Amino acid sequence: MLTLYYAPGTCSLATRIALIDAGAEYTSKKLDFSKGEQRTAEFLALNPKGRVPALATDHGLLTENTALLIYIAQSWPAARLAPLDNPVAMAQLQAFNSYLSSTVHVAHAHGYRGNRWTDDPAAIQAMKAFVPTSMTAALHLVETHFLQGPFVMGASYTVADAYLFTMALWIEGDGVDPAALPRIIAHREMMQARPSVIRALAEEV
Amino acid sequence: MLTLYYAPGTCSLATRIALIDAGAEYTSKKLDFSKGEQRTAEFLALNPKGRVPALATDHGLLTENTALLIYIAQSWPAARLAPLDNPVAMAQLQAFNSYLSSTVHVAHAHGYRGNRWTDDPAAIQAMKAFVPTSMTAALHLVETHFLQGPFVMGASYTVADAYLFTMALWIEGDGVDPAALPRIIAHREMMQARPSVIRALAEEV
Repeated sequence: MLTLYYAPGTCSLATRIALIDAGAEYTSKKLDFSKGEQRTAEFLALNPKGRVPALATDHGLLTENTALLIYIAQSWPAARLAPLDNPVAMAQLQAFNSYLSSTVHVAHAHGYRGNRWTDDPAAIQAMKAFVPTSMTAALHLVETHFLQGPFVMGASYTVADAYLFTMALWIEGDGVDPAALPRIIAHREMMQARPSVIRALAEEV
Repeated sequence: MLTLYYAPGTCSLATRIALIDAGAEYTSKKLDFSKGEQRTAEFLALNPKGRVPALATDHGLLTENTALLIYIAQSWPAARLAPLDNPVAMAQLQAFNSYLSSTVHVAHAHGYRGNRWTDDPAAIQAMKAFVPTSMTAALHLVETHFLQGPFVMGASYTVADAYLFTMALWIEGDGVDPAALPRIIAHREMMQARPSVIRALAEEV
């Protein structure tokens, strides 16, 4: 049995979409970040990172979208959510997801979690003010180089589409001009019409 | 034919160690970051991220350690550098590598690349001053929870060992007390005795 630990508005949405795409059965448990529920002793005993997504499985807890998305694709191969038999294509998919996690998501996090990287209130404000710049730059590379279209990897839908969609929901809130990212916005609109995405958004409340 | 683009002192070392472990044939091209060679038009045309590692292959350029390390393990399966047939173990390995790339490496980067996240000189200094704190916290989780020992994944060497070793070389330079991380330091010393690591360090000059 799978249990997805999630928080609304965070990147756990990507794992949820992939679980739905895979046809997996799962339950989910919400963590209210505004109440610090990701830092309770109970949750830290389960996931010492204090973050989501975290997926409790019969084989232990799994974390990190870049790991979970591939795990889901490998565990439900019939859903064809990744080019599993092609090491080059898998590396391209993983590189895309890694860029989202270590560059795009990190840029976004400077608007909300600046205390990960400084305890200086003025510096935290300076980081926050720079998010539109860093997010625009990071997403510009996705727009111009990495999003093949119509899906991330070209003709076939993969877990990378769920991950990009999740971050594309942050565009306006991060002060990024959506008009500068027409391909990402078109991808977002296409994704919003998919039944798995509609269900995932309804569940992430 | 493979060409590894690298810079001394950076995380490209992890990919190089894995290539050597795999028995791959490759050449390498050094980018002098002090001269900004990662930002030349020539290199940006190849890798618009302007970063290393980047691996030119017969099937195009591949980037991101978390992708490259698995690519190498999959492409040279006889070297047994990852638990390729076990989706759970692969997810654990990938989660470990992802934590290094999106949390440990990001903490480190605030000491050198603060201008990715602010243009305020005082904030850049504040970030730099906080690196010992954030790196200590990030590595403490590796020390106490994620490094199974003696290798990252337990009894078997994997590409995750090359990646952890690479970041463990940054400990003293980042102002982290090595005495607080005895298991990571023991891992580093074990790694430094491996022929592939000795060769990689000799090549990364």
